[in-house]
Amino acid sequence: MKAAVIYKPSSADIKNEIEQILKEKGVIFKTFDVPTKEIEKFDFIISIGGDGTILRILQEIKHCPPLLGINTGRIGLLTQIYPHEFRNALEKIVRGEIEVEEFMRLNCKISKEYESGKETETLRAINEIAILTALPAKLIEVSIFVDDTLIDTLRSDGLLISTPLGSTAYALSAGGPIIDPSLDSFLIIPIAPFKLRWKPWVIGPEKKVKVLLHPDKKALVVADGQKVIKINPGTTVFISKSKHPVRFFRINKRFEKIVRKLEELK
Amino acid sequence: MKAAVIYKPSSADIKNEIEQILKEKGVIFKTFDVPTKEIEKFDFIISIGGDGTILRILQEIKHCPPLLGINTGRIGLLTQIYPHEFRNALEKIVRGEIEVEEFMRLNCKISKEYESGKETETLRAINEIAILTALPAKLIEVSIFVDDTLIDTLRSDGLLISTPLGSTAYALSAGGPIIDPSLDSFLIIPIAPFKLRWKPWVIGPEKKVKVLLHPDKKALVVADGQKVIKINPGTTVFISKSKHPVRFFRINKRFEKIVRKLEELK
Amino acid sequence: MKAAVIYKPSSADIKNEIEQILKEKGVIFKTFDVPTKEIEKFDFIISIGGDGTILRILQEIKHCPPLLGINTGRIGLLTQIYPHEFRNALEKIVRGEIEVEEFMRLNCKISKEYESGKETETLRAINEIAILTALPAKLIEVSIFVDDTLIDTLRSDGLLISTPLGSTAYALSAGGPIIDPSLDSFLIIPIAPFKLRWKPWVIGPEKKVKVLLHPDKKALVVADGQKVIKINPGTTVFISKSKHPVRFFRINKRFEKIVRKLEELK
Amino acid sequence: MKAAVIYKPSSADIKNEIEQILKEKGVIFKTFDVPTKEIEKFDFIISIGGDGTILRILQEIKHCPPLLGINTGRIGLLTQIYPHEFRNALEKIVRGEIEVEEFMRLNCKISKEYESGKETETLRAINEIAILTALPAKLIEVSIFVDDTLIDTLRSDGLLISTPLGSTAYALSAGGPIIDPSLDSFLIIPIAPFKLRWKPWVIGPEKKVKVLLHPDKKALVVADGQKVIKINPGTTVFISKSKHPVRFFRINKRFEKIVRKLEELK
Repeated sequence: MKAAVIYKPSSADIKNEIEQILKEKGVIFKTFDVPTKEIEKFDFIISIGGDGTILRILQEIKHCPPLLGINTGRIGLLTQIYPHEFRNALEKIVRGEIEVEEFMRLNCKISKEYESGKETETLRAINEIAILTALPAKLIEVSIFVDDTLIDTLRSDGLLISTPLGSTAYALSAGGPIIDPSLDSFLIIPIAPFKLRWKPWVIGPEKKVKVLLHPDKKALVVADGQKVIKINPGTTVFISKSKHPVRFFRINKRFEKIVRKLEELK
Repeated sequence: MKAAVIYKPSSADIKNEIEQILKEKGVIFKTFDVPTKEIEKFDFIISIGGDGTILRILQEIKHCPPLLGINTGRIGLLTQIYPHEFRNALEKIVRGEIEVEEFMRLNCKISKEYESGKETETLRAINEIAILTALPAKLIEVSIFVDDTLIDTLRSDGLLISTPLGSTAYALSAGGPIIDPSLDSFLIIPIAPFKLRWKPWVIGPEKKVKVLLHPDKKALVVADGQKVIKINPGTTVFISKSKHPVRFFRINKRFEKIVRKLEELK
Repeated sequence: MKAAVIYKPSSADIKNEIEQILKEKGVIFKTFDVPTKEIEKFDFIISIGGDGTILRILQEIKHCPPLLGINTGRIGLLTQIYPHEFRNALEKIVRGEIEVEEFMRLNCKISKEYESGKETETLRAINEIAILTALPAKLIEVSIFVDDTLIDTLRSDGLLISTPLGSTAYALSAGGPIIDPSLDSFLIIPIAPFKLRWKPWVIGPEKKVKVLLHPDKKALVVADGQKVIKINPGTTVFISKSKHPVRFFRINKRFEKIVRKLEELK
Repeated sequence: MKAAVIYKPSSADIKNEIEQILKEKGVIFKTFDVPTKEIEKFDFIISIGGDGTILRILQEIKHCPPLLGINTGRIGLLTQIYPHEFRNALEKIVRGEIEVEEFMRLNCKISKEYESGKETETLRAINEIAILTALPAKLIEVSIFVDDTLIDTLRSDGLLISTPLGSTAYALSAGGPIIDPSLDSFLIIPIAPFKLRWKPWVIGPEKKVKVLLHPDKKALVVADGQKVIKINPGTTVFISKSKHPVRFFRINKRFEKIVRKLEELK
């Protein structure tokens, strides 16, 4: 078994402790201060930091080895254990005693047309794809299609296409429902729509979502708050369920964790 | 093939037309002005009326033969065709050319304890189970459990456990999201909660929902706005996915229909 | 100075203490277990109980002498002090050292037509006038006018016309904003409207609000959760600012109190 | 009588027509393609364009002569008449037959501290002061005080302090109530708060609002979507009712206009 260890610079002390335990247990590992695509090939991943560290790792990898998130900051929704619990968890991982659970990711394709040709950019997200105005206090206008059915056209600060895991992230702020992480689905919800007549939508995972940015305004496509792509007026953004789910060791019950985190949310 | 015809008294004229067409086409049928459990045994059901007529039929039957809803009033979400389209639809049904689609129903069990013993009542719903205050302007207090995890305790006018189809019925009024009818799930949402900190929840269909009515106040359990049961303080209400889905002939695309109906909703 | 003492039956012990202090201080008083119109004529009112006790007092009186609410239960928004603080507060009241503040009340007129003639009923409210469906799970339909301008027509479980003080009562549950109690105004907000396109309205206090109940369904008009009047289809309900505000001794800053109470609201 | 005519470049044709009518009627005027402080000294203002043209004019002037907004685009909430109605309106203005109505504006002071000293910037707004994240998809954190009472601390995309007129502008998108424009008040509402426990607040116009931007993130202060100021972490923004209201000729009833505009809002 070969582990990839990725750590947040401010957690170097804890990284040293974790490396020590890995050595004791005879687990081969390689440490990264910046995640790269190379970690796709490891047997499992140890992330040391916060939710942001995990989000950065997931930006780099398509195939996702089972991931263990050691939390060194405020507890997040994606991290699973505290440093002092690591020794115990590692033993169970090595003995194959911890189940792995999968959660849906989003695949997002953006076709950009230039005079010189066409180019497609791809983004992945575990929480949400946000399509946001590039100019604060200026609205964008989008049309939203589900399997080619137009479900809404609206002017707003932005639009979110969120996973169930993301329903406790940005989509929570936008006013969306909490979605059971075991229920693969898309949550489509605008941010501050200039409209009286709208609703969040929860859509089956086999469907295709398409968002058309109307002429006139530029926008940003943001994946998990990590990667930002500028798009031109008239661009179409395609979102579907990724073939590559994220995989976490099941340390705690995800559903109970969400209930507890919501209680903590000030 | 044997059809059960159920009609709303005010639609007797249209019922006569429909019977005439059935005779022409040589379809055996029996007509009911009030739906009974007997219609479970027919090959298909023709409902003449509005959404209410279909809701009343579904209250009576566990097993659901494929249903065709002829709309004689304002178009609803459950009815599918207008009277003048019936001849054409019937021909296709007889030739087996119309697909049947299934939608999740709710099963609701209420245990009532008396001095003389215990009794269980069962309700079924295609839209929602509503637990409502029995006294207008007086709050009830409930605790909501999902698979034994307490997700919320709140004081409110009521609580809804809704299907995806029901997300465009009472749950829409309560402020819930629109849910794709192909996505089996429970939508749990309070009505007018006296609380700042709450969210609608969308839960996987394999989970069990349990609602505990706190001591002090009586409540009503209402299935699809059709059947009402009074419950005592301390009663627990159990809701799960029914083994008996509802079955409709697929005349139009359900998802597109929802989009169009929302546009019409004043 | 002559005080009217009104107490909740379950607070008889505390009533005895309060009476003792009044005697010591030489304050003449009369005690009521049920509030009556007679207390209008006293110099001030001492309410012993919770918010409900104050609401019941206010139902009985048009002219409102300054009121001191002693809280014997969970602290409410209308009560002001705890029993052990009473001696101190009373001394200040007797010495005229406590300011009196006024808050807007609602006046509600309902014209009822009978074969035998016409009758007008009047209700008063410090929190809200609620127009509610008389049948759980059945919608009412109302049209709302402000100074004869139709602002909305909707089907819902009910409609609230609330004062600023009431914005932390039933209107909070319906999803309304918090309104500064010093800002005389009407908050108009539906309960669970079957409609996508609606907003709470905050209206100037000089305006007249008129609610027309559409034909077909009966409704209830409820004042502060205390008084209930059944109304027939087609009835019009008129709401305006009452000429008789409620008067409270200013023990704490009302605005700060609201902020603290919202923090406590679970 | 001396009129200032301000027009939007794309409405030059209509400006020529308007000038012709002014000449016919013997009204002295000066035309501006860009509004300047000079127009404060005119007897009245004619704005030719849309709501944006009026917002740009109001950014320049403290004292506001009565304003007539001629609408050359989609009808807005601030513009009052169409070009073909101008002749008639002008006659009435000249004869002094049109009342002038005043609406509250916001005054916003931002203290900026530099190594070299301190500087205060002032903004004015008729709709709203928006405090927005300078980095899309990154939250800001603010504490909100009303007359030194802390009413909330939250992380969000931004925060709005809106006038009643602004309740149908950006604040509508954020989920706020509609406020009667005759009811001077502040509407305080966050944009996409990462928090379950929050409410819009409607506050009396004599109060002072103070917003403290927490350390860590930069933000933008935007007045009516027109003027943008970057602020540093730790900056405090002070908002109060301006001594200089905006003044409009009362061509239509403002309240009815709002009702009609909301009906048109898609």
